[in-house]
Amino acid sequence: MTTFMGPNYLLESDTAVWLYHEVAAKQPIIDYHCHIQPAEILADRRFQNLTEAWLEGDHYKWRLMRADGIDERLITGDAGAREKYDAYVGMLPRAIGNPLYAWSHLELQRYIGTDLVIKPANADAIWEAGCRVLPTLGVRDLIRMSKVEVIVTTDDPVSDLAEHARLDADPDWDVRVLPGIRPDSALAFDTPGYLDYLSSLAAAAGLEAIRSYDDLLTALERRVDFFAGRGCVTSDHGLHHMPLPDPTANPAELFRRVLAGESLDGRETDALTADVLVNFAKMIHRHDWVMQLHVNALRRINTRMTRLLGPDTGFDVMHEQPLATATARLLDAMDQNGHLPRVVLYSLNPHDDTILSTIAGSFPGVRGQVRHGAAWWFNDTRSGMEAQLENYANTSLLVNFAGMLTDSRSFLSYVRHEYFRRLFANVIGGYVERGEYPNDPDTLAWIMRRVCYENSRDMLLKKQ
Amino acid sequence: MTTFMGPNYLLESDTAVWLYHEVAAKQPIIDYHCHIQPAEILADRRFQNLTEAWLEGDHYKWRLMRADGIDERLITGDAGAREKYDAYVGMLPRAIGNPLYAWSHLELQRYIGTDLVIKPANADAIWEAGCRVLPTLGVRDLIRMSKVEVIVTTDDPVSDLAEHARLDADPDWDVRVLPGIRPDSALAFDTPGYLDYLSSLAAAAGLEAIRSYDDLLTALERRVDFFAGRGCVTSDHGLHHMPLPDPTANPAELFRRVLAGESLDGRETDALTADVLVNFAKMIHRHDWVMQLHVNALRRINTRMTRLLGPDTGFDVMHEQPLATATARLLDAMDQNGHLPRVVLYSLNPHDDTILSTIAGSFPGVRGQVRHGAAWWFNDTRSGMEAQLENYANTSLLVNFAGMLTDSRSFLSYVRHEYFRRLFANVIGGYVERGEYPNDPDTLAWIMRRVCYENSRDMLLKKQ
Amino acid sequence: MTTFMGPNYLLESDTAVWLYHEVAAKQPIIDYHCHIQPAEILADRRFQNLTEAWLEGDHYKWRLMRADGIDERLITGDAGAREKYDAYVGMLPRAIGNPLYAWSHLELQRYIGTDLVIKPANADAIWEAGCRVLPTLGVRDLIRMSKVEVIVTTDDPVSDLAEHARLDADPDWDVRVLPGIRPDSALAFDTPGYLDYLSSLAAAAGLEAIRSYDDLLTALERRVDFFAGRGCVTSDHGLHHMPLPDPTANPAELFRRVLAGESLDGRETDALTADVLVNFAKMIHRHDWVMQLHVNALRRINTRMTRLLGPDTGFDVMHEQPLATATARLLDAMDQNGHLPRVVLYSLNPHDDTILSTIAGSFPGVRGQVRHGAAWWFNDTRSGMEAQLENYANTSLLVNFAGMLTDSRSFLSYVRHEYFRRLFANVIGGYVERGEYPNDPDTLAWIMRRVCYENSRDMLLKKQ
Repeated sequence: MTTFMGPNYLLESDTAVWLYHEVAAKQPIIDYHCHIQPAEILADRRFQNLTEAWLEGDHYKWRLMRADGIDERLITGDAGAREKYDAYVGMLPRAIGNPLYAWSHLELQRYIGTDLVIKPANADAIWEAGCRVLPTLGVRDLIRMSKVEVIVTTDDPVSDLAEHARLDADPDWDVRVLPGIRPDSALAFDTPGYLDYLSSLAAAAGLEAIRSYDDLLTALERRVDFFAGRGCVTSDHGLHHMPLPDPTANPAELFRRVLAGESLDGRETDALTADVLVNFAKMIHRHDWVMQLHVNALRRINTRMTRLLGPDTGFDVMHEQPLATATARLLDAMDQNGHLPRVVLYSLNPHDDTILSTIAGSFPGVRGQVRHGAAWWFNDTRSGMEAQLENYANTSLLVNFAGMLTDSRSFLSYVRHEYFRRLFANVIGGYVERGEYPNDPDTLAWIMRRVCYENSRDMLLKKQ
Repeated sequence: MTTFMGPNYLLESDTAVWLYHEVAAKQPIIDYHCHIQPAEILADRRFQNLTEAWLEGDHYKWRLMRADGIDERLITGDAGAREKYDAYVGMLPRAIGNPLYAWSHLELQRYIGTDLVIKPANADAIWEAGCRVLPTLGVRDLIRMSKVEVIVTTDDPVSDLAEHARLDADPDWDVRVLPGIRPDSALAFDTPGYLDYLSSLAAAAGLEAIRSYDDLLTALERRVDFFAGRGCVTSDHGLHHMPLPDPTANPAELFRRVLAGESLDGRETDALTADVLVNFAKMIHRHDWVMQLHVNALRRINTRMTRLLGPDTGFDVMHEQPLATATARLLDAMDQNGHLPRVVLYSLNPHDDTILSTIAGSFPGVRGQVRHGAAWWFNDTRSGMEAQLENYANTSLLVNFAGMLTDSRSFLSYVRHEYFRRLFANVIGGYVERGEYPNDPDTLAWIMRRVCYENSRDMLLKKQ
Repeated sequence: MTTFMGPNYLLESDTAVWLYHEVAAKQPIIDYHCHIQPAEILADRRFQNLTEAWLEGDHYKWRLMRADGIDERLITGDAGAREKYDAYVGMLPRAIGNPLYAWSHLELQRYIGTDLVIKPANADAIWEAGCRVLPTLGVRDLIRMSKVEVIVTTDDPVSDLAEHARLDADPDWDVRVLPGIRPDSALAFDTPGYLDYLSSLAAAAGLEAIRSYDDLLTALERRVDFFAGRGCVTSDHGLHHMPLPDPTANPAELFRRVLAGESLDGRETDALTADVLVNFAKMIHRHDWVMQLHVNALRRINTRMTRLLGPDTGFDVMHEQPLATATARLLDAMDQNGHLPRVVLYSLNPHDDTILSTIAGSFPGVRGQVRHGAAWWFNDTRSGMEAQLENYANTSLLVNFAGMLTDSRSFLSYVRHEYFRRLFANVIGGYVERGEYPNDPDTLAWIMRRVCYENSRDMLLKKQ
């Protein structure tokens, strides 16, 4: 029996143990997609207790607490910090097998320095350890302790990236915090505030207003260029579903109707969205950025709770929209016009994995031109990651996988990289144990380094 | 090598062995969804041989026999009992890995008292054992031997539940046999006999006739109240697909057209079905019942055989209808009007599991307000159950899972609870073995008790 | 740790070791679906080097090379043989877990006689071994060394099967090379060259022209009869999706419109395609052939590369078209008219497996009347095969599975049968190890023989 969350946790063979401890654990972290606020790094925020560090803004944890019937007052409401913490600790023993069970314990071990089991009997001791240790650590310490080299944030095109610039200029800070452009708002044609958004986009881009489709593209291109000047190397797109390009559509006319306040039907919205994406691909291809496409989340399904708490509070689910044809045609359109950027494809529905991976393999270019991305959100679990890795190996070159990211708002979430690295070491060890790959330490160590660190570094910085 | 179907069958670690034998095996059974006929319990039916006990009405077994090319005469036809039994025994060795292989052997071991391997060479001995033992056991004995505390049957709203009442009043019988209301016929708007059904529903509800949508809802509500008086605590709904609510629809007008013999199109049928379900939810919410929703079976695909044998004879298959949006909107409609009952969601297609589980987690309320249900029908297999448990753990709180049910017509099928408990002990043992959960016997025993027994008991009886 | 690709590779229990080496490895091969060119057998082609043997026409390998960013010149272009080989060898160490990694090593071990690891450091030695051994072996030797008894090729209805006839008449050749009819071109109503194809079909069938739907069916029937005379026992159909039959459609009128150069919409194309298939089923049912239906590939998604290289060059992907209703109705139509042939169903999307398997189980007839087929193409991997076997066992009788096929253009690809047999022995051994099936050597050996050899032999030759 492996010791609970002990040194060899998740490592089921000697090869896996060696690969994790001697190679993977020593690699720096490139966190190429997250939702951290640069302002908090700038301010070197200090958490006072585990409620602040754990439960602020973490809708993963809120979901589990709600599944246990815990009153919302103790989750996002006005209950005290200790009350909320106790509610979480009371629930967690029920989360056997859930990644939050693993992550919470890893966070305690790595940042708070205790290996106590999280349960009501240990609630006081853990709370006290948190209150003792956390105030001594700024988020900059947390980042440095985690050996993070690069953080890529998620930023709207209208952002002035002022905090990124100040961090960049800070002589006491050497971890690169790069912006990542996420122009979803510019594609949200049917949302109520869309025209207002266009005004702010125009202002950011130095245009008087956005009065045409050309203006929209010009504004986006100016923002892309501005972001490039601030070190941006990737765009990220959260799409309800992959939009089907329509070569017969007239996007300028469709956008004119949007500006006139008319609504588009589904096919028209898809045609316009796809055309913007193809144009956006051209803009970022010029800078050799990586385009990250995320699909198949169905958002805000609980009307009552969304009214109460707003978006991103734990009421989004896995969706099931078909995507093969649309993804293929979208990439094909980019490829045919000669401006296919490097792309990473993510679907929240793992049943899309082989579809996306085989599509990725159909658009050759540089190494890793189009890739399938890491297991995302509800799939960021032991079995979800194992399935994603197995699918990657089955359908492509696992050694070229761009690797793990946190996708998180939390400064403790770098333990997810540890979790991934343990699993990955175990998967690679498994291939060796079963006689499927030679037991050649140099080659195995190279595989670990590539996937745990170098591939993501090269994807972002060396433009491989 | 584990002994074939021996004491430690399916138990791959010491922890699993301990958890199964010391905890799980000792728990009573709450069978909260089955198709048993109360009349057979009332009559304390005795089977004369294994053909009666095994092959009467069991379309799981019929399917396998047909897959082996066995003549229908030997399956549902006029062949003799021994001939049919021999055909089954001749086929079964080909069913390696099939749950029927496991269940059939467990049934022999637990009820007939033989651990012979089922194969032609043992056919005589097993037949004789069955003929010797079965007539000595009434179905009441079978139920008692299985430590069943509660059985929930499946009943049409028009049923007078007379047999339930008689069982309830029987001083010699202390296992609770509760009705479960299944109003599918009241929602089968496009079936030929629908208007006749409405007449019988009106009669059961004490109405002269059902002349309007209000009448339909009144009739259903009266039957819900009647069922409540007979101990009913759950409704069950077999839906071809999740119906999409349409807030712009006029259900009264749609139902008027049904009454007039006009046909509705798909969207209209969905709108009407969804509205009945939302109203039904309100009715049962008043009694704090559990609503069980089953979707994604495609029924009666073989026209020739269905004509010959009728429904539920082995010609239904797994379906693939999308359900994310419709399920989300249906629950949201119930939630918005303040009458969301406790719900258990089942899809025959396991690719829906994470979708359903994340939807469930988006409608908070009491503990287990909305839950994903046990692996159903074609997924009621070792790997199907393991996948369902893994998904539950990944996306929710596994300790709150409502647990196993038989969904069966058979009085021998309680061994499926044993099968589940072995698997569940093995899954929990696996988490401990891999260092993913502490090796704390008290907590592990608590997990076993909750999922094998207490959660389903509390779901039905304590209204947790 | 198992020796890399050693004797017990993939065999994780003593039972598996015994079953593979003592039973499975000794069975002949029936390769009942492949894309081998009979002309190459007729000419007893000899490969001069590993580039010819490995990289000619193998779009599996091309995909992986492209995923590594290798220039197309080194894949399908005018680079020299050694350059291409070096590119492949340079890429392969990145393919950990990919079936090509396994297959390539097995091919070296079984045909070239070296167990060197494929990597740049061994590139020279392996190249030299290939150049030394390959010219000494004709493809007839390769086939004989592999213990192949029957090969079924893939042939258009217009083919005169001259090479099959010459092979059949060759006194020095005793492996049966049977034609397999694939009438996809006759169903490609919307392709530009369709009318030209009809002319060649008419000519092959001895008709002046195809002027009506009756003519089309007559031509197909004549070709079926001709193929039957040449030993054909199976048809194969590559369908974009399962076409939904439409009982209200007029196929003769739809076909008249095709002949008139009019285009059909999706529903009409489906109706016509389904009707041809139902008629075709009747034609082959008369000869008791097996109908193989392949669906859910999305083809040629990269316009630029398809223009450059043509079809079947590595730009096809897994698709996701729904198929439950259409497959059910198609088989039901065949069954209702009394001419359901034996059928094998394949989908490129493994999420269809349980759907197809439960549909198969709903159309009884002879043993294995309708079956789910082997894991196909992107699923022809360790985990893909394991999942397919598990699903088969869960939903049907695994002992009746028709077994492995290569689906390949390569004469070295018979190692895929070895790969399958090792996996299958391991799966069966696993059932025994876990106590799920008795440790009865005779029965286990029978299972191995049935699935590795006898079932496919009987399916083709004894009409079981």
